[in-house]
Amino acid sequence: MVGAATPAVLERTRVLVEPLLAAAVDRLVDELRLPARYHFGWVEADGSPSDAVAGKGLRPALAVLSAEAVGADASVALPGAVAVQLVHDFSLVHDDIIDGDEERRHRPTVWTAFGMDDAIIVGDALHNLAYQVLLEDPTPERVAATSRLARATTVMIAGQAADMAFDDLPAVDLPACLAMEADKTGALLGYSASVGAVLAGAPAGKVDALEAYGVELGLVFQAVDDVLGIWGDPVVTGKAAGNDLRERKKSMPVAVVLSAGGLAADELRALYDTEGDLSDEQVSLAADLIVEAGGRDGTVAEARAHLDAALAAVDGVGLEASAVDELAALARFVADRDF
Amino acid sequence: MVGAATPAVLERTRVLVEPLLAAAVDRLVDELRLPARYHFGWVEADGSPSDAVAGKGLRPALAVLSAEAVGADASVALPGAVAVQLVHDFSLVHDDIIDGDEERRHRPTVWTAFGMDDAIIVGDALHNLAYQVLLEDPTPERVAATSRLARATTVMIAGQAADMAFDDLPAVDLPACLAMEADKTGALLGYSASVGAVLAGAPAGKVDALEAYGVELGLVFQAVDDVLGIWGDPVVTGKAAGNDLRERKKSMPVAVVLSAGGLAADELRALYDTEGDLSDEQVSLAADLIVEAGGRDGTVAEARAHLDAALAAVDGVGLEASAVDELAALARFVADRDF
Repeated sequence: MVGAATPAVLERTRVLVEPLLAAAVDRLVDELRLPARYHFGWVEADGSPSDAVAGKGLRPALAVLSAEAVGADASVALPGAVAVQLVHDFSLVHDDIIDGDEERRHRPTVWTAFGMDDAIIVGDALHNLAYQVLLEDPTPERVAATSRLARATTVMIAGQAADMAFDDLPAVDLPACLAMEADKTGALLGYSASVGAVLAGAPAGKVDALEAYGVELGLVFQAVDDVLGIWGDPVVTGKAAGNDLRERKKSMPVAVVLSAGGLAADELRALYDTEGDLSDEQVSLAADLIVEAGGRDGTVAEARAHLDAALAAVDGVGLEASAVDELAALARFVADRDF
Repeated sequence: MVGAATPAVLERTRVLVEPLLAAAVDRLVDELRLPARYHFGWVEADGSPSDAVAGKGLRPALAVLSAEAVGADASVALPGAVAVQLVHDFSLVHDDIIDGDEERRHRPTVWTAFGMDDAIIVGDALHNLAYQVLLEDPTPERVAATSRLARATTVMIAGQAADMAFDDLPAVDLPACLAMEADKTGALLGYSASVGAVLAGAPAGKVDALEAYGVELGLVFQAVDDVLGIWGDPVVTGKAAGNDLRERKKSMPVAVVLSAGGLAADELRALYDTEGDLSDEQVSLAADLIVEAGGRDGTVAEARAHLDAALAAVDGVGLEASAVDELAALARFVADRDF
């Protein structure tokens, strides 16, 4: 693994959030608790202890930093941190069904391990639990935080629907791809990066700046994810090489090439215009085509541009300097990651 | 059709709620709006106008009556009425996938018409929209109404999980069946029958009485539903005769027989202990067995007992007499329906 060192805020936040998250999940009935705990990597499918690799906990870390950025204690952010993690995980459980993904973080997905019916209802339970947990916070600001969660989640779901609709379109240009990814990934990261400030009762200007940082970070995250979805090492990504191409996803590198038009776009469109999953040979051909036509470089450039925009959003708006430094380190970590 | 005349409150409420519900659904992105509008029976799958039979609108009617029962105007209840309808419909869309039901109200279910992936995400969108709509209500009481919605929905999801788990149990007794059905159906009806009073800021005693009425009504509803699931006329139920037996559901008539034990219970358990769906002959045999062993009469008796409990809950607690009369008429309508 190369790239930036893991920012300390991730571990610092995990220690605060995971016990609360575990307590929330433990409130589910037995039938839902086991698959939910399995999804979080805390147990194996038979209930035995697991040493699975957990998620990075990016969203809770953003929530905590957004409280600290407005001078509040990390504890203020915790109900928001738990809620946003629950919403994120509900979306993962359902998206894995929709995308037919059989593995996540080197383990069978919930639908693969427990069946589709259980995965549907476990996702529903996590989604609903997010609202329940957040509304139990005693602060008056929980109301604004919950309204914002509802709006961000509606946008996230719309983004997932747009991504699904891309499968039926002959081509997708870069603006359409960025708009979809801003919805699918950016909205909830924007929420994550501002909910602590909302719960702290911070003024709208600071909340908006933090949210803008999060939306931009979402596009950084997605650009890197889309590069890894084609050229990532299966050992570290936990997905087959060229997975996104095999499934003919219209991700950012593909959209860059299709947007540019010309011969490479025609060839790529022709490859995508066949029936069924692409063969290994076709995947390899498509990957080379995209590199030559500048799709990989163009996507890396998008990641850099949105990283700059994220950093600019939290600069000069009166946020606490140490938190801004940590937000910047986190954004660079997301931009540089290779897993 | 026999049974009580359709209570006027259903039509009176539909006129108030349906435009708001349609406006809420219209806020969804195109990809989600069409399958959602199809589910509500407003359009066909191709977007053309539909003359589909709509749902009865029981939950919105309860919400409106609960506001009127505490002396408030029907309008106070409307955000709650819309929210509870959205949650109910999200659960129908997902439950139809889980139960493998291909028809609802004589039309293909959403997953049948649009595919499972779309049905998952449309359900998610309706679930989330419920919170978004309710939180936009300007009254301070929206916060309590939303917290209660989160709790009721968690219980509803737990009930659905319990129902799914019943499929893997050799037998289910009556108390377990009633507990599952109180969760699966009663919790959201209890919420429906009290949310108007919550939004009106009514005292806890009246809210609790109305909620208790709704939970009991849920058991009435479910008992009748379970009788119709075995002996209902397919022309009016829109489902195949004996459907619940064919799928080996452990519904209330079955649980009554299994609880009583003896020869009939052994025979029924043996029938249920075969592989795959039951044949027409086995369905007919099981239905006769349940009648002879008192499973049908026992379930009708449960419906009557919970009807009495529902009526008793709203008696003598200082609610408006005209609303109590309408609640009673609605409960009798639910108990007497044969569709």
